[in-house]
Amino acid sequence: MNRFVVRSVVRGLVNGRSYCSGGSVGGEFAYRSAIVGRSLQLSGQQNGVTFGGFEWRRMMSSAPASVEKATSEREEKSENPVAGETKGKEVVTSSYWGISRPKITREDGTAWPWNCFMPWETYRADLSIDLKKHHKPKNFIDKFAYRTVKILRIPTDIFFQRRYGCRAMMLETVAAVPGMVGGMLLHLKSLRKFQESGGWIKALLEEAENERMHLMTMVELVQPKWYERLLVLTVQGVFFNAFFVLYMLSPKLAHRIVGYLEEEAIHSYTEYLKDIDSGAIENVPAPAIAIDYWRLPKDARLKDVITVIRADEAHHRDVNHFASDIHFQGKELREAPAPLGYH
Amino acid sequence: MNRFVVRSVVRGLVNGRSYCSGGSVGGEFAYRSAIVGRSLQLSGQQNGVTFGGFEWRRMMSSAPASVEKATSEREEKSENPVAGETKGKEVVTSSYWGISRPKITREDGTAWPWNCFMPWETYRADLSIDLKKHHKPKNFIDKFAYRTVKILRIPTDIFFQRRYGCRAMMLETVAAVPGMVGGMLLHLKSLRKFQESGGWIKALLEEAENERMHLMTMVELVQPKWYERLLVLTVQGVFFNAFFVLYMLSPKLAHRIVGYLEEEAIHSYTEYLKDIDSGAIENVPAPAIAIDYWRLPKDARLKDVITVIRADEAHHRDVNHFASDIHFQGKELREAPAPLGYH
Repeated sequence: MNRFVVRSVVRGLVNGRSYCSGGSVGGEFAYRSAIVGRSLQLSGQQNGVTFGGFEWRRMMSSAPASVEKATSEREEKSENPVAGETKGKEVVTSSYWGISRPKITREDGTAWPWNCFMPWETYRADLSIDLKKHHKPKNFIDKFAYRTVKILRIPTDIFFQRRYGCRAMMLETVAAVPGMVGGMLLHLKSLRKFQESGGWIKALLEEAENERMHLMTMVELVQPKWYERLLVLTVQGVFFNAFFVLYMLSPKLAHRIVGYLEEEAIHSYTEYLKDIDSGAIENVPAPAIAIDYWRLPKDARLKDVITVIRADEAHHRDVNHFASDIHFQGKELREAPAPLGYH
Repeated sequence: MNRFVVRSVVRGLVNGRSYCSGGSVGGEFAYRSAIVGRSLQLSGQQNGVTFGGFEWRRMMSSAPASVEKATSEREEKSENPVAGETKGKEVVTSSYWGISRPKITREDGTAWPWNCFMPWETYRADLSIDLKKHHKPKNFIDKFAYRTVKILRIPTDIFFQRRYGCRAMMLETVAAVPGMVGGMLLHLKSLRKFQESGGWIKALLEEAENERMHLMTMVELVQPKWYERLLVLTVQGVFFNAFFVLYMLSPKLAHRIVGYLEEEAIHSYTEYLKDIDSGAIENVPAPAIAIDYWRLPKDARLKDVITVIRADEAHHRDVNHFASDIHFQGKELREAPAPLGYH
């Protein structure tokens, strides 16, 4: 296992490219009939669904069992398909398993360029959210959480100083961990106790995915150096395991800590915006991924991106403090319905 | 930590209730403006969206910043709300964090009773899916995966014999683990390598959630006994850790094993259906959760439920064998777009 770890680390540090541009969707495949029921409701051929100006269509065959194949890909029809030679860097996808991605297009007919999120997963952030909300620590657990976060801020401020782009890029790699760990532990609990989740598994997993999208956006703007990558790797190893154990021991404390971390994130993003306004940080055009994900105008700038990211963090703050409050009542999360619109 | 584990185990075994009925959605709250952008596209007040016969509406205030509160819940307006006394068994939700669940209704105006899935997450399974597909083992890894699964079948068959309901209920607690572990490890990899996921994180997490819904359905039909709960607890502890390590060492082998496990699941569900057809197992009415989740007719029976579950397993088989094939080409999953309609 050590060889795998070392190889992975070295490859990661040396190659060091981010692959945030969307991959090819591999031509027009008729949609796998596995979800034809839902697709028919949403197919552009019947009633196009508009999400915030995007009208997306899936190109579907009318006969669910038939599969149209793109002519650009080689097809393999054997019962036990051989993986096949790779054409350059592309994966040769066999049709045997029937796994393909339909073509998703925008209203103007251009292809949807992203694989990691779809048009119906985009949204407009609520900029009227109250950024000033704060949970006043009242008991030992609250105070412990608050002081832990404040103490962790010290080395962070020393390392990053006013390099807010770099700070955001690296800290989002940490911020995306708690939601995933929490969601997973709730999932396992739901399984072994045969209990409903109240929607909280999805709420926490969506928070993690939202933070990951913050990262994917920041990486378009700020490229990590090799020693920053090494630091991220190390911090992930420590933080993932520590938060895993913490969430098992005290989800109440875990959610409270995350709530306070989000409060600090809001503060940092506010400082970031001040530096953009003062000209200390250039207000560059917004990356395409951010424009699509948050449904920003085409001429959006960095300032708009940081504003919506900050609004997301405020929502996460609310969700995590709320979750901690539920635990403080001696209840489990599933006893209060999770918020919808998990972002 | 031992005390926590023991207390949790004992409570779980002794209480032993499943809480699969949907919880209260807590009256009509105007939807938190955090997602007003998306909500306005989908609000029943503007254009109701129909999903397979359900028309769902969110009751929204027209002014995004205002929040209407249900009169039945006590409100707390202090800046730092006290969690408050619990009214009986309900959680007292403070309005301070603004976290609430809007009322989701069906077309007929009745409340949507489920918290763990929403109308737009329901679907009709593809019953035309080929149940006979099989990956012929060709190399050492394939053969190892195939033989491991076949060997694991032996004690499973001895324990369950023809008690297919119990088998399904207990084995779904295992089946829901791989997708979650795989999704989480891909998520962590995406973070530390600053790389896109190709949609595979969501694909695997959705597989896990789908398997969990199978469990939630089966638990409505078959109640686990205390020793079965203990067995589930033990198996989860072992399997989660084993699969976690396996996926880190060899995702190729991990996906292949899951593909073969799904092939076995298809076989088991086929035998289940035979016993229903022969009358050995009573063809009881389908549980409400299954009717809503798979959009089954109101008079659906157990046979219909097992049929759609089996179709889901076939889809998971395809996705996992496909994922393993990608690895066999020396590629990473993100280099081939993940399937949409992850179920």
